[in-house]
Amino acid sequence: LNENTPATPYLQIDKNTITEKFNRLQASLPGFDLAYAIKANPHEEIVRLLHSKGSHYETASWSEIEFLLSLQVPSERIIFSNPVKPVSSIIRAYENGIRTFTFDSIGELEKFRLVKDEVCLLLRIQVSNEDSVWPLNQKFGAHPKFWEKIFSYMQNHRIPLGGITFHVGSQCESVKGWQKAFQDAATAIKLSYTYGLRPYTLDIGGGFPIFLGRPVPSLEEIGLVVSEELEKLKTEGIQFERLLAEPGRVIVGEAGQLSATVIGVAEREGNHWVYLDCGVFSGLMETIDGFTYPLETEPVRRTKKLEMTLCGPSCDGLDKLYNVKMALPRIGDVLTFKGAGAYTTVYASSFNGFSGPQVFFKELSEVTSGV
Amino acid sequence: LNENTPATPYLQIDKNTITEKFNRLQASLPGFDLAYAIKANPHEEIVRLLHSKGSHYETASWSEIEFLLSLQVPSERIIFSNPVKPVSSIIRAYENGIRTFTFDSIGELEKFRLVKDEVCLLLRIQVSNEDSVWPLNQKFGAHPKFWEKIFSYMQNHRIPLGGITFHVGSQCESVKGWQKAFQDAATAIKLSYTYGLRPYTLDIGGGFPIFLGRPVPSLEEIGLVVSEELEKLKTEGIQFERLLAEPGRVIVGEAGQLSATVIGVAEREGNHWVYLDCGVFSGLMETIDGFTYPLETEPVRRTKKLEMTLCGPSCDGLDKLYNVKMALPRIGDVLTFKGAGAYTTVYASSFNGFSGPQVFFKELSEVTSGV
Repeated sequence: LNENTPATPYLQIDKNTITEKFNRLQASLPGFDLAYAIKANPHEEIVRLLHSKGSHYETASWSEIEFLLSLQVPSERIIFSNPVKPVSSIIRAYENGIRTFTFDSIGELEKFRLVKDEVCLLLRIQVSNEDSVWPLNQKFGAHPKFWEKIFSYMQNHRIPLGGITFHVGSQCESVKGWQKAFQDAATAIKLSYTYGLRPYTLDIGGGFPIFLGRPVPSLEEIGLVVSEELEKLKTEGIQFERLLAEPGRVIVGEAGQLSATVIGVAEREGNHWVYLDCGVFSGLMETIDGFTYPLETEPVRRTKKLEMTLCGPSCDGLDKLYNVKMALPRIGDVLTFKGAGAYTTVYASSFNGFSGPQVFFKELSEVTSGV
Repeated sequence: LNENTPATPYLQIDKNTITEKFNRLQASLPGFDLAYAIKANPHEEIVRLLHSKGSHYETASWSEIEFLLSLQVPSERIIFSNPVKPVSSIIRAYENGIRTFTFDSIGELEKFRLVKDEVCLLLRIQVSNEDSVWPLNQKFGAHPKFWEKIFSYMQNHRIPLGGITFHVGSQCESVKGWQKAFQDAATAIKLSYTYGLRPYTLDIGGGFPIFLGRPVPSLEEIGLVVSEELEKLKTEGIQFERLLAEPGRVIVGEAGQLSATVIGVAEREGNHWVYLDCGVFSGLMETIDGFTYPLETEPVRRTKKLEMTLCGPSCDGLDKLYNVKMALPRIGDVLTFKGAGAYTTVYASSFNGFSGPQVFFKELSEVTSGV
């Protein structure tokens, strides 16, 4: 390590990659407003960069909205898509010009009685999450058996249905996830028509995968599937005035790499444990549910590959990352987790006095990448 | 809710309970230095209160030590017992007067070559954690098969063995955990004698349980077992100059209760989901590994008890607490998690813009409790 190397742990983010990803996704989803899910990484520099690209934003809380407004993001570019929100947050968002909201139950719909003008209410329907690494369909989404009840309630209370939204689950690794979701959305929309509702928005959520060492469909492949599905809907008489997507991980994930230093190596019963200065509670939270990142080590060691367990610096038994087979690193070696730009800094606490990674940006290069 | 009720989520901590727990544990473990594991809850007010009671402190990082020193805690009252530490942290701790350190591998021992004077090195041995809710014995602790190698290394390098330490696992709910650990400690100590080592400290770690709705041994019962085991060791010629324990959860857990407000209730397929303004990422992290807290609700509802899933406010599918059977609460109801004074605020991040609970203290009452 030379003097200019920052102290680990640190997250290095490449702005060119963010730009490239945004451009590619926009090209793959023509006509879509891309609403960046700022929960993935709400760093101000990322918001400013995406703002310059014309991004919209997907938010989960009033705090997130407040933060965006403080950065001069216009309220028309913000959607509030946590399906369950505190009433006070809905009111504040509404008073500040937010007009697109997600709901998935009658209980949530009732909260909008306090909102006088028409807003665009998107029903989040429950769709299969079987192809995603990080399913979200237990906690959120109206199951088909509740659709009639919800649509009937909307008809009776003269509440317009702004649209349908779904989420295929975080890091969805097969296009089938989207195909199935479109079928479900079509069923819901047709049903809504029979209740006199006229949904005009489709929000296909997030879940666009990044490279984590396994083959995943490209953004272009997913875009093709989405176009095909939209065409199919058109032949069935279903068209939309507004199309939305909520990319988070796909925009910033591969742009970031998180570097941590080996602080200890111990031979344990069965295998070796490698202790890093960053762990589950300081940024690598997603590993506890089976998420693994492609790894680079420096220096490269040519010794025999061994099975080992990577773990964080805290005293907590849960602060365990995952098992890898590689040459045993030594104290002072630096391990770099690729594809770690999303859902890392946001989960960091200061448990045990170990804080999350510092964030550094690689500025945009002069040569604009021609994707 | 009246005007004086703070906004949820909040953690209310009763200083009397902390004092009572410290007193009871000290009475149950006569002759022991109680080193409060500040990772459980490092709030300054707690440190100051315990300092006035003569507490020692167990730390896991240089940041924790630095914090204690900034509060004028004398270095003799601090032990650095993370078994795997960055070399730089060992050096800083040593330069600031810390003299008691834990290790569990030769790799860690080698880091002390840079330390010139004698320090008290405690070998953390691996013991059964089968009676604990939160096992710690995979990540830390020297397995018996490595003891000879470690003792031989110490003998050859003329490194004194300061003592033995173990950890029965967090929230250990049977005294058997301690009985078995003492037997293992005796075996390790006798083995160390054959290598010319003379351990003079025993650190029995933490793991003292709190009430979480199930019967647990009292501090007095655990104290009795510890006394019996120390007596047994004495008959085998094993005595100690210094006895240490590392209570964390038991000191502050029951002293704290965390209150959260219901922000949404949704009927889902199978059961109801109840959405709170505090979740896994804002303080209730321990629930993801099966930890459940006794609950109180306000107001008390007399409707039929239903199976329901409690969850936090974020958009994350992992932000799910646990299932309970109770009367369905309504939006605005307050749920209070008892026994939540430890390992809650310390895990809180600001994911999705939802921050952790504010902390409030109930001051010491005038009448000193006569435990």
